[in-house]
Amino acid sequence: MAKIVVLGAGVMGSAFAQMIADSGHDVSLVGTHLDGNIISALRDGKTHPRLNLKLSNRMAALYLHELKDTLGSYTDLIVLGVSSSGVEWAIHQIGKTLPKTTPILLLTKGLAVHNRSLRILPEVVREGLAVHGFKGIIVGAIGGPCIAGELAARRSTSVVVALPDGSMLESIIRLFSAPYYHARGSADLIGVEACAALKNLYAIGIAFPAGQLEAGFIAENEAKMHNLCAGLFTQALVEMQYIVSWMGGHPFSVYGLAGSGDLYVTCQAGRNSRMGKLLGAGVRYSEAKSQQMSHETVEGADLALTIAPAINFLLQKGRLKESALPFMISILDAICSDKPISLPWHLFYR
Amino acid sequence: MAKIVVLGAGVMGSAFAQMIADSGHDVSLVGTHLDGNIISALRDGKTHPRLNLKLSNRMAALYLHELKDTLGSYTDLIVLGVSSSGVEWAIHQIGKTLPKTTPILLLTKGLAVHNRSLRILPEVVREGLAVHGFKGIIVGAIGGPCIAGELAARRSTSVVVALPDGSMLESIIRLFSAPYYHARGSADLIGVEACAALKNLYAIGIAFPAGQLEAGFIAENEAKMHNLCAGLFTQALVEMQYIVSWMGGHPFSVYGLAGSGDLYVTCQAGRNSRMGKLLGAGVRYSEAKSQQMSHETVEGADLALTIAPAINFLLQKGRLKESALPFMISILDAICSDKPISLPWHLFYR
Repeated sequence: MAKIVVLGAGVMGSAFAQMIADSGHDVSLVGTHLDGNIISALRDGKTHPRLNLKLSNRMAALYLHELKDTLGSYTDLIVLGVSSSGVEWAIHQIGKTLPKTTPILLLTKGLAVHNRSLRILPEVVREGLAVHGFKGIIVGAIGGPCIAGELAARRSTSVVVALPDGSMLESIIRLFSAPYYHARGSADLIGVEACAALKNLYAIGIAFPAGQLEAGFIAENEAKMHNLCAGLFTQALVEMQYIVSWMGGHPFSVYGLAGSGDLYVTCQAGRNSRMGKLLGAGVRYSEAKSQQMSHETVEGADLALTIAPAINFLLQKGRLKESALPFMISILDAICSDKPISLPWHLFYR
Repeated sequence: MAKIVVLGAGVMGSAFAQMIADSGHDVSLVGTHLDGNIISALRDGKTHPRLNLKLSNRMAALYLHELKDTLGSYTDLIVLGVSSSGVEWAIHQIGKTLPKTTPILLLTKGLAVHNRSLRILPEVVREGLAVHGFKGIIVGAIGGPCIAGELAARRSTSVVVALPDGSMLESIIRLFSAPYYHARGSADLIGVEACAALKNLYAIGIAFPAGQLEAGFIAENEAKMHNLCAGLFTQALVEMQYIVSWMGGHPFSVYGLAGSGDLYVTCQAGRNSRMGKLLGAGVRYSEAKSQQMSHETVEGADLALTIAPAINFLLQKGRLKESALPFMISILDAICSDKPISLPWHLFYR
C-alpha cells in the first residue's frame, strides 16, 4: 500500500484520488484554497458538488492547511490536480513542505511560454521546485482520453503515464490497479504533454463545421459536415506531429492515446467544442467569451491566448514554418484577433 | 477537358461523377444492371433516388448497354463506383470494352482473400484485367473521409488518391479541381486501401460502448463512455498500423486521411456504427443481421466474414501475432461466431 497525496479537489483531482483509493492505496485528497466547499461536502459524506457523485469513503478529504501534515516525512507520490493557472501556486505550496525526492505527477494540462518559446508544465514545476531548493525531483504527467466525470463513475479509461525515468515509471504504473483504469507508460514526456495541451486548441477548430450546421447551413439532402470535421481531425494530428517533433518529443505520442485518443474524446463533448461551434456559427470570440460562455473556462482558448505571442514570434523568426501550421494559425487568429476561421486548403495534409 | 467514365450509379459513384462534372470535365455516369431506376430518374431530370438530390445536369447518365460506346476508343480515366461484391462483375464488364492503357481508380472499399492471405482490391482488378488480355493497366484507388451524401451536397471533403505511378498521380489529382474537393496524392496504395477497408470493421467495435449506454448502462452522474470509445479509436489505429505494415504498406497512411480521417468519419454515423451499437446493447450478430438490420449492407461485417478465415489461418500459422490484434479478433469473433465483444486490456496500446 502506497501513500499518495493529490493536491486539487476539482473534478479531475477528485476522480483520480478515488481511482487511487480503489487501487487499495492510502490517498489524501487535499483541496486548494478554492476547494473548501468540496472538501467539507466530502467530509460530511455528501456528493462531490462538481462531479454530482458520492465518492469512495476510502480516501481522506483534507483542507489546504492540512497539506504539510499529510505529506509528513514520507510520501510515495504527489499528484497535482490544479488548473494550469494554478501551477505556480502549487509549486509554492509544495515547495514549502515537500518530503525529499518525492516524485510528482501532473494531471494539469497546458503549455507555458518561456524565453519566447514553448515549455511543458512538468518542466515548469521541476525548475520551480529547484528554486525552492528541491533539485532533481522527478516530475511526470498523465495524458490520454480522460473525461473526469467518466473516471469518477468508474467507467473504462485509458491513459498514458509519462515520466523521463524508466524504472520509476514501471513502479508508478503498477500503483494504478483499479480495474477500470488502463495505464500505459511512455518516456516521451514532451510529446505526451504537448498533445495534452494542444488537443484543446484543435478541438475548437474541429467543432467549427458543427457550428455552421447549427447556424442553419443545412443541405437540401440534410447532409451533415462529417467529412470536413474528419479532415480537420487529421490535419490537427498532422500539425501536432510537427509541433511535438519541433519541441523535441516523439511523433509516436501523437498517434497514441495522448494524441489521437485525447483529441477524439475532446471532440465528442465539452467546452472547447462549444466554443468552436459558436465560432462556426459566426459569433466572434470576444462576444462568445463575454456573453454565451462568460463564466466558463475554455482551456483551448486560454492556451491560445498564452502561446499566441510566442508562436507568432517563432513564425516571424522562421523557427516555426507557417506552412506547417495553417490550422493552428487560423484558430489562434480567431481567438486572439477575432477573425473568422479560415481554412487554407492548399496547405493542408502536407 | 478530360473524358472520364464512372461505372456504378450508387451514392458514391454518382456523387463522384458530379464532382468530376463540377471540375469541368466530360463525364459519363454508367449504371450497373441494378441501377436502371437511378439512370432513368437522372435522365428525366429528377432527384437521385438514393441521394435525394438533383445532381448536376452537366453529366451524362447512361445505361449499362451504353458503356462500350461511351468508353469508345479513348477515355482518360475509368472510375469504379460498384460495391465490393460487384468488383468481379465490373472487371468482366470493363474487360470486354477497355480502351488500351486507360488508368482505373476504385471508389470501392474492401479486401479480398487470395491464397489464404489478404489482398487489396486494385490488385484484384489489375490481375483480373490481365486475364482479359489487358496487361500493365494502372489501377489506383481513393481513400479518406468521404460520406457520399455530403460530397453530393458539395460539402468540403478531403481524400487521398493512391496510385503506384507517381507522374500519373499528379496529373490525375489535377483533374479533381472542384473547390469543395481536396485531393492529396499517395504512392502507398496498399496502406490507403487496407485503411479504407479496415476502418469499417473497427468502427463496429468503437460503437460498442454507445450501444451499452443505449441499453441502459447509465451512470448515476449521467457520465457517458467517451473515454472508452476514444481508447478503442486509438487501439484501432494501433492495429491498423500493424496490419498495414504487415501487408507491405506504410504506417504513415494510417495516421493520415485514409486511416485516422476515414475512421473518424465512420465513427460519427452510418451502418457500421449502428451494428456496433446493437452488439454493445447485447444483441448477437446473427440476430441483428436477421432482424434489426436485415435489409442493410454492413460493410464492416461483410469484411469480417470475408477475411476471418484467412486471419484465423494466419494467426494459427504465427504469420500474424495474436497479441497485436486483440480488438480485431474480438470483433471478428462477435460477427463470425456470435460471441460478445471482449476487451483484453492487457494487450491494448502495445
